[in-house]
Amino acid sequence: MSAEPLRLHPDRFFSPDPAVRRVARELYETVADLPLVCPHGHVPPALLAEDAPFPEPTALLLTPDHYIFRMLYSQGVSMEALGIPTRDGTTVEADPRAVWQRFADHYHLFLGTPTRAWLDHTFAQVFGIDVKLSGETAMDVYDAIDAKLGEPDFRPRALFDRFNIDVLTTTDGAADTLEHHRAIRESEWDGRVLPCFRPDAVFRIAAPEWAAEMVRLGDAAGVEVTDYAGFIRVLEERRAFFKSMGATSTDHAVVDPLTHRLDDAEADRLLQRALRGEATAADQAAFEAHMLMEMARMSVEDGLVMQLHPGSFRDHNPAVFRRFGRDMGADIPLATEYTRNLRALLNVYGTEPGFTLVVFTLDESTYSRELAPLAGHYPAMRLGPAWWFFDSIEGMRRYRQRTTETAGFYNTAGFNDDTRAFLSIPARHDLSRRVDADYLAGLVAEHRLDESDAHGLIQALAVGLARDTYNLGEGTPESLLELSSDGEAR
Amino acid sequence: MSAEPLRLHPDRFFSPDPAVRRVARELYETVADLPLVCPHGHVPPALLAEDAPFPEPTALLLTPDHYIFRMLYSQGVSMEALGIPTRDGTTVEADPRAVWQRFADHYHLFLGTPTRAWLDHTFAQVFGIDVKLSGETAMDVYDAIDAKLGEPDFRPRALFDRFNIDVLTTTDGAADTLEHHRAIRESEWDGRVLPCFRPDAVFRIAAPEWAAEMVRLGDAAGVEVTDYAGFIRVLEERRAFFKSMGATSTDHAVVDPLTHRLDDAEADRLLQRALRGEATAADQAAFEAHMLMEMARMSVEDGLVMQLHPGSFRDHNPAVFRRFGRDMGADIPLATEYTRNLRALLNVYGTEPGFTLVVFTLDESTYSRELAPLAGHYPAMRLGPAWWFFDSIEGMRRYRQRTTETAGFYNTAGFNDDTRAFLSIPARHDLSRRVDADYLAGLVAEHRLDESDAHGLIQALAVGLARDTYNLGEGTPESLLELSSDGEAR
Amino acid sequence: MSAEPLRLHPDRFFSPDPAVRRVARELYETVADLPLVCPHGHVPPALLAEDAPFPEPTALLLTPDHYIFRMLYSQGVSMEALGIPTRDGTTVEADPRAVWQRFADHYHLFLGTPTRAWLDHTFAQVFGIDVKLSGETAMDVYDAIDAKLGEPDFRPRALFDRFNIDVLTTTDGAADTLEHHRAIRESEWDGRVLPCFRPDAVFRIAAPEWAAEMVRLGDAAGVEVTDYAGFIRVLEERRAFFKSMGATSTDHAVVDPLTHRLDDAEADRLLQRALRGEATAADQAAFEAHMLMEMARMSVEDGLVMQLHPGSFRDHNPAVFRRFGRDMGADIPLATEYTRNLRALLNVYGTEPGFTLVVFTLDESTYSRELAPLAGHYPAMRLGPAWWFFDSIEGMRRYRQRTTETAGFYNTAGFNDDTRAFLSIPARHDLSRRVDADYLAGLVAEHRLDESDAHGLIQALAVGLARDTYNLGEGTPESLLELSSDGEAR
Repeated sequence: MSAEPLRLHPDRFFSPDPAVRRVARELYETVADLPLVCPHGHVPPALLAEDAPFPEPTALLLTPDHYIFRMLYSQGVSMEALGIPTRDGTTVEADPRAVWQRFADHYHLFLGTPTRAWLDHTFAQVFGIDVKLSGETAMDVYDAIDAKLGEPDFRPRALFDRFNIDVLTTTDGAADTLEHHRAIRESEWDGRVLPCFRPDAVFRIAAPEWAAEMVRLGDAAGVEVTDYAGFIRVLEERRAFFKSMGATSTDHAVVDPLTHRLDDAEADRLLQRALRGEATAADQAAFEAHMLMEMARMSVEDGLVMQLHPGSFRDHNPAVFRRFGRDMGADIPLATEYTRNLRALLNVYGTEPGFTLVVFTLDESTYSRELAPLAGHYPAMRLGPAWWFFDSIEGMRRYRQRTTETAGFYNTAGFNDDTRAFLSIPARHDLSRRVDADYLAGLVAEHRLDESDAHGLIQALAVGLARDTYNLGEGTPESLLELSSDGEAR
Repeated sequence: MSAEPLRLHPDRFFSPDPAVRRVARELYETVADLPLVCPHGHVPPALLAEDAPFPEPTALLLTPDHYIFRMLYSQGVSMEALGIPTRDGTTVEADPRAVWQRFADHYHLFLGTPTRAWLDHTFAQVFGIDVKLSGETAMDVYDAIDAKLGEPDFRPRALFDRFNIDVLTTTDGAADTLEHHRAIRESEWDGRVLPCFRPDAVFRIAAPEWAAEMVRLGDAAGVEVTDYAGFIRVLEERRAFFKSMGATSTDHAVVDPLTHRLDDAEADRLLQRALRGEATAADQAAFEAHMLMEMARMSVEDGLVMQLHPGSFRDHNPAVFRRFGRDMGADIPLATEYTRNLRALLNVYGTEPGFTLVVFTLDESTYSRELAPLAGHYPAMRLGPAWWFFDSIEGMRRYRQRTTETAGFYNTAGFNDDTRAFLSIPARHDLSRRVDADYLAGLVAEHRLDESDAHGLIQALAVGLARDTYNLGEGTPESLLELSSDGEAR
Repeated sequence: MSAEPLRLHPDRFFSPDPAVRRVARELYETVADLPLVCPHGHVPPALLAEDAPFPEPTALLLTPDHYIFRMLYSQGVSMEALGIPTRDGTTVEADPRAVWQRFADHYHLFLGTPTRAWLDHTFAQVFGIDVKLSGETAMDVYDAIDAKLGEPDFRPRALFDRFNIDVLTTTDGAADTLEHHRAIRESEWDGRVLPCFRPDAVFRIAAPEWAAEMVRLGDAAGVEVTDYAGFIRVLEERRAFFKSMGATSTDHAVVDPLTHRLDDAEADRLLQRALRGEATAADQAAFEAHMLMEMARMSVEDGLVMQLHPGSFRDHNPAVFRRFGRDMGADIPLATEYTRNLRALLNVYGTEPGFTLVVFTLDESTYSRELAPLAGHYPAMRLGPAWWFFDSIEGMRRYRQRTTETAGFYNTAGFNDDTRAFLSIPARHDLSRRVDADYLAGLVAEHRLDESDAHGLIQALAVGLARDTYNLGEGTPESLLELSSDGEAR
């Protein structure tokens, strides 16, 4: 085949300046093989509970990755033609090879994007592919991957071990039974997979799905929620259950990160209105702002790290939402305000010992203006890594350039891959480690940092800060070993 | 003369890093001599219709260029002293040599600005000047340029041909007769000069000039506009006329890019209020938001590419406006919101086949936060190039750095020079091609892009994307050849 | 001691690229030893009036520096443990050596921050320390500094002279007697220390402290303020007094930079409401917006340069405020709007000859979007240097990258150190000069600037623009020599 070779250059993502590159390479080499600490992401736990062979390349790599199909969609390739499953019954392309070919025909769209960097890494490192993907090579690449997927070494748990994942945190609804997590822990396999408590759905009291979510929550808790006091009690119990299952963190997605405490009577009034199906958008905003306060209070008490992911206008394209559902590449960021919005929470809980609030943003203008100053002041606050659209080479550089001088390195939370694309995990950590090594090397080359300090920092950025922020020490924590087989903490 | 030499370094605007520079040079050389595709700008078509010799250097280079006189104004040189014509009868400097000298005395103000880069390019490349402009060399430079302007090779059409302009789009009001465009097409000269339909003035129903604009529109259409249905009919006819005269695009300037459909009755109510001279600012905002929806609808039907230029607070300085009028360097950008504002339009038309919406911004914080995610999702949307204050070396770099990783290269619209300074067109395209070559070379040097892919991309960035976005294939389109001499499509 | 050596690399903060570095070094060398022009800062004038020996290292370097203690606070070191004095009587760490040790134990928190760059410079250049500060070396470094502080050469005036400070402007309330400034001028020492008129406290009519501030103002003026006309009269007199004491500027801190003129009757109504203790937050906002107009009017008349520092949410953490008071590292920036807010002021006064308005920001997104375009148009406006969180290597680079292409260099105000940390002044100017030299060198290396022009510009950026903007010509101005000993202008 006359195809172009696929080669991952050993110095990729490093500055071409020889003075920087030498140091970047040295720093990177000290962390390249460290275990992967993954404190936040969206890998389905069933994957590792069932450990079934992956079906075939398209279902594995394309169908679940909204970074991929939204880019093709943006250039006129329909999601139906890419075989994305619909919820309205519309027929979609059923032949995975046809989808793969279509994707490969458009692979040039990803030039210069992190998606291409992750995919090329995955092709080369995970599957040993040595030709560039293109329309011409599409079927050869497909077949090569497909052949590998049949081997036992390419099952999820085998890859988890091969990827050297130290710990992988999933994201789970408040009503989740965590049955897959239990199955993993009851299995012989010793991979560390932890849940994360994400109760957004039961806080969105004006959403059409809310009532059904509350039923699920009641079922999970074994008690119907009829008032605010009961709601709080159930949430506390669910958190305790998650914690007993190894959770070290919670996660919260809101549009605006408004925090504001209501008195209990008012909170109950809002909940009653919601239970009658009468809650408005304004009610929900007030309730969410209040529940963030409550989540912080509970975190102070139970020690779960609180994560906040604000600023996304979800499901911006209703046609896509109606046909394909949520998380389909149609979420668009909004300008986001933190200084005023987070004040109530930080004033009350921001100096509580043992409390950690990790704040993310999709609005880069807040890095230097609001988030670094806040994280550089409040003891509880850490700045989450460059998120989503900014989990990229330039995005990470801007993150460091705009936050380090105010917040330093130690008020940042370390890397997380935040991915549902299991196969891309090594690529994402490798990219992050390379970008951080290069950033530190730049500081060394400009004599802003001693090489010895850079060597300490790269360890922190690659692994240490993530472990520290999320209380993810090495190995299986004691608490996990003390659990009875029914998942209750002893 | 002991003046310093003016030399355009062959490697200007390229990174000094040898690894980057080598590739940048190679990439640039492949596009340096390509024709100039100019899909958006403000060159007066009369210039090319009349093809009269340019008067003298000051009237050619200084008087029409608000980048130049606003910088001198900002440092205390009055616009009267620069000979800018007034509309209130105030006397201004009448001696072009005195103005030129004043400008040259302050040429240091432009150090590090794109204006200086464009001017130096124009001096050196167009006029063969080999000394740096300064107070000392002012008159020599003036005389040298003035002498050239008398030669036939320096007439507008000769320069158009020498500049290798493939196509030049102007900007024309909805009521415009396009007589200059007709004259150009009826002439023997085969330069491709196309109109663009810009109806802003008839959408600003609360503006003092609106009534007069509506009279002009009625005159052009041969029918008085008395209601909304008639207004829409006239607009559709005008668009058809523009299209028959070669237009491939429309252009729309608003403060906020709000899009929102009114029902026809409500739209008519607003128009009636306006016809009675009673429209308010709020009426206008609602009407403009609605008319953007209508413009998108018509673009879906007639295929004209829709451009949106929001976010400028026009005529910020009323003293300047009163004396000198519009476009006098006193327009100041505003923070601009796209995610919510564009939603109505994108939801309805954003996936229509054949529809293209090119969105520009003066708020760089929206590149990564809103525009790249929107362009990276909606099929119809393309991101316009770095605009106005950002049509510069650093501005273009930030544009690529903040948009590529989310939107890729292919959701961007290619370069346009957006200039009324005809002589600066080659300089602007050259600068853009150099900056893009350097950006791609940086990706190559960091092993983020293969050299072969970079060679393909530089062609797209220099010419291909502009042609593709604006439907400006090579050569004279069929439709133009089929026009009767009265300008009506057959 | 096996400690690591502390070395300030001669090429620190310069690009590692050899082509850039060579030019940066050459440019820097031409300004490295120029006198320091300090037109804005917060050094207490008592320091130089009394010229007492500095107490010991902790009280000198740590206790007054909110950059330092807020970073330690952010990582869980309490301000009490750092010996920060409380106003509520809470006991704090009394042993300066214990505080110093605690600080040194956490010195890694400052890696990559300007605080560390300034401190290392101060340690090495001012005190001749040659080991890196660490937990291990803490007491050795403390002792070495402490020993120096006992020497006459380390008294404030001796250091002022050794630092080669040409002029140092302080910041002083409207009611200030300027007794320390008088003492300095009546002393034999010829250091130039000038006051700056900062009347914010008497404009904040809804603040609890306002009544007391008005009493102080009345006392200073020798007349009770009972109405708006009297208020204006007193302010004019205080400005005249400040001017007679050498002031060349005023300074104004507001949350939003809204400017809006009220009629005098309305202004009086607000003031009367305030005198009755009934002013609301909305009253204050209107009054402040009006007083900015009045301050501009007075500046047009008396020639004092007007500075505007908006956009800080002061005392974000009420627990810190209650115990420790203001300026304790808990001020957090806000998104700030300039285009609309400054319009009223710029429309009326923005073209007045001799008037200068220096505008600062904590919202970097406004550099290119609003501030550079405004400064690049209005003759009166200059853009203040990168401020506070952005007074740093990356912060200054972004400032130049985002403002130069629109505003040029000559619409910027030159550097000011804005510090209360007297010992850090040389470090801050040195850092600024290095970053500017490096920025210009980058332009030279990319052939965007001739080397000869760069040599002119570095002089302007290091000293010339600050002198010019703030009317701080070399040597003691005439006016100062003509003052009687009672501080009244003759």
